[in-house]
Amino acid sequence: MPTLYHAPFSRSTTLLVLIEEMGLTDRIELCEVAVTRRDGSGGPDPRNPHPEGKVPYLVDGTDALSERGAILTYLTDRFPEAGMGCPVGDPQRGAFLGWLFYYQGVMEPVLVLDEAGCDHPVLRATFRDMGAVTARLEAALARGPYLLGARYTAVDLLLSSPFHVMPEAIPDRPAIRDWIRRCAARPAVAAVTAREMATLAG
Amino acid sequence: MPTLYHAPFSRSTTLLVLIEEMGLTDRIELCEVAVTRRDGSGGPDPRNPHPEGKVPYLVDGTDALSERGAILTYLTDRFPEAGMGCPVGDPQRGAFLGWLFYYQGVMEPVLVLDEAGCDHPVLRATFRDMGAVTARLEAALARGPYLLGARYTAVDLLLSSPFHVMPEAIPDRPAIRDWIRRCAARPAVAAVTAREMATLAG
Repeated sequence: MPTLYHAPFSRSTTLLVLIEEMGLTDRIELCEVAVTRRDGSGGPDPRNPHPEGKVPYLVDGTDALSERGAILTYLTDRFPEAGMGCPVGDPQRGAFLGWLFYYQGVMEPVLVLDEAGCDHPVLRATFRDMGAVTARLEAALARGPYLLGARYTAVDLLLSSPFHVMPEAIPDRPAIRDWIRRCAARPAVAAVTAREMATLAG
Repeated sequence: MPTLYHAPFSRSTTLLVLIEEMGLTDRIELCEVAVTRRDGSGGPDPRNPHPEGKVPYLVDGTDALSERGAILTYLTDRFPEAGMGCPVGDPQRGAFLGWLFYYQGVMEPVLVLDEAGCDHPVLRATFRDMGAVTARLEAALARGPYLLGARYTAVDLLLSSPFHVMPEAIPDRPAIRDWIRRCAARPAVAAVTAREMATLAG
């Protein structure tokens, strides 16, 4: 059985929501580990096999992988019947992969650079800026309630995820605000949040 | 037939090398477009459907995608017989996806931040630094000549690509230098470079 290394209220929460959405809670083992938090609390956990002590990390037999986009692709491909992905051969397979890589390679860097207040011509040439991210999201959402159209997928889960914890970064565009609200209102998000709150209380 | 939008001596050159390695030159149409170059020359090309006028961009029927890691995944999955990928179900599928997303989400941002001379606790917490990238590459290359072991794959092609154009960023580690040399010595690299030089001369 694959094992997901995770820490509550971290980037790995996205994967817990995916597992909940896909009905895989009894098919993936969870191993909760400590991580270094932004405020300096916590620290690397010796039980965590991630090379830099981060989460998420997925181990499946002799195979292992980091990065949320990679794990979303891996799990939606491995369990295609759960319907959160676009399997190889699906007419939107390319768009699906494109969005996941765009998030990791462009959108998250732009959000983090914005938060850090960093600007430089080389950064702008490579990643562009929040205006370009906003334009891409808005163009997609003009065609349907979700980024791939009618259906909520792992793409919506990943791309909406930063805005749940950084509401100040939400672009002031009605279509994007409504989409974030729709994604945040998924029962799977409420279920995972409740479980993570319980962990804290424990 | 899928169409790849590309510009010589740019990030899309990685995809030309992939197409050459996979023997797909007659199965993928190429459309050369202008892009804004770092020195300010060139500019967006109206023929380029990429939302930000960048390359690469792949169009396949009604499907379309940006980001090198996404296009590498898409093409190696679509043409598994060409052997540059790890299809769904392969025992290294997870590692394959993990490296491609790691490149886009961590390694490229680290290289670009280094080049721009940007440092900030938030950036470091998210992406770590070149030391962490070096450690990951070195750990993998201690187990074989290529990042997934014995076989040269799209992972080596993507992760070695920045060092061909930024030799000053090459870590001073023998195993990494030798790996970059092996990747650069592929006949497909020479063939694509010769074609791109001819384009310039034309």
